[in-house]
Amino acid sequence: MIFSLSLYSRLQQKKGSTMNLHLYYCPGTCSFVPHVMLELVKESKGQDFSSTMITLRTGEHLKPEYQAINPRSQVPALIVDGQLVTQVVAITNFLNETFPEAKILPTDPMEKAQALSMFVWMNNTVHPTFTRIFRSERFGDEAGKDSVKAMALEMFKTQLIEIDKLVANGRKFISGNQLSPADIYAVTFIRWAGMAGINPANYPQYQRYAAAVAALPAVARIMTKEGINLNTYVGN
Amino acid sequence: MIFSLSLYSRLQQKKGSTMNLHLYYCPGTCSFVPHVMLELVKESKGQDFSSTMITLRTGEHLKPEYQAINPRSQVPALIVDGQLVTQVVAITNFLNETFPEAKILPTDPMEKAQALSMFVWMNNTVHPTFTRIFRSERFGDEAGKDSVKAMALEMFKTQLIEIDKLVANGRKFISGNQLSPADIYAVTFIRWAGMAGINPANYPQYQRYAAAVAALPAVARIMTKEGINLNTYVGN
Ligand SMILES: N[C@@H](CCC(=O)N[C@@H](CS)C(=O)NCC(=O)O)C(=O)O
Ligand SMILES: N[C@@H](CCC(=O)N[C@@H](CS)C(=O)NCC(=O)O)C(=O)O
Repeated sequence: MIFSLSLYSRLQQKKGSTMNLHLYYCPGTCSFVPHVMLELVKESKGQDFSSTMITLRTGEHLKPEYQAINPRSQVPALIVDGQLVTQVVAITNFLNETFPEAKILPTDPMEKAQALSMFVWMNNTVHPTFTRIFRSERFGDEAGKDSVKAMALEMFKTQLIEIDKLVANGRKFISGNQLSPADIYAVTFIRWAGMAGINPANYPQYQRYAAAVAALPAVARIMTKEGINLNTYVGN
Repeated sequence: MIFSLSLYSRLQQKKGSTMNLHLYYCPGTCSFVPHVMLELVKESKGQDFSSTMITLRTGEHLKPEYQAINPRSQVPALIVDGQLVTQVVAITNFLNETFPEAKILPTDPMEKAQALSMFVWMNNTVHPTFTRIFRSERFGDEAGKDSVKAMALEMFKTQLIEIDKLVANGRKFISGNQLSPADIYAVTFIRWAGMAGINPANYPQYQRYAAAVAALPAVARIMTKEGINLNTYVGN
């Protein structure tokens, strides 16, 4: 045991790693946000991470094995040196503070507040709106779930318009002059929109901006790894 | 103009303030969280804040005057030296970083990650669940809204149990050894539960803990200022 622990430490040192980071993710879900953040950490700092794919479609997240890891049965979950951290926002903020070289959030306090404001709005408002489209049966009974879905779809479209306006005039990023987690969430939402039968071409500014964000090397690498494309729209 | 600006600066200096902070809030709503955080800043650092009450019940947030301040027509909104910051989590994090003396969040990175994880879970999951109870007409049509409300009520109760367990064994705070924003959100939720006809006595650990948090001087002062009590349950 002592032997294997010290071997482990030496392997860690050899890789230049200071921390053991392991992400549980499902392709194309909100775990895409911390997944890209981990890739930014790797790119800037050489701190590597490992990962396990959890397939929500087959119910892998509901199995006892995964519940033992994250009792809430959701992705993302990040294991930091053996300790569980859940929630997109908490994981991202932890990575930003631990690896400032990755420049995940702006350093100026007011710019950071604005970037965080957009990011948490996406997390507490846009994301839950989409969940009501995709999992309407969790929110209304047989007689009610169709109206839940229809009303959420209208709300989601309003939110897409809000994002479209935020990136008008050729803006490259949602907040200030740098990539931030809100941009990665925005890429996720336009993919989800397509799956819900919403044509991304209805939001031309947003579509242009999302294509540029998706083409950034770290983002593109994680899209390839997850096996996902930006365009998910197949008509309706 | 130059005269009044320099007068303003001198008044600021006289008060020892370095920043102009103005909160828009509505009593008993989620704006209670940043309201208490501002009181902690005042207590620890002497940095004062001013505030305006916006009455949601009478639709004050929907009037053009308030929409000019916060286009999303919600509370809380914090104005920092003339600049708008929205979102409970972004406001709180900004205050924590700008006024570390207020000890709003733990300083140890992993403890902070855990405190933030609970806080954002409350903001993105528990809070939106309650919104579906209180504003079910926004989420389902005439035929659907009753089931939206009933299903949200069951989900909310599960979340109250989760909080009850977190503070079992006489624990004083949700996260680690210090007060954090999650504790103030928890006080808000048990008040909301009572309004929804849920007896807080069903969650004895939570009830004991919330009473102790509500009795902390800074928390008690803001409850008095907002004119709210911890117990909102009148039977059902
Ligand atoms: N509040 C959580 C939400 C996580 C979440 O919604 N995860 C989804 C994927 S996007 C999930 O795991 N869903 C599985 C399920 O709920 O059954 C966070 O911000 O991390
Ligand atoms: N995502 C926002 C939510 C703010 C929110 O829900 N505010 C409520 C009071 S708790 C509000 O202003 N409601 C008025 C309305 O929506 O009409 C945050 O975290 O700050």
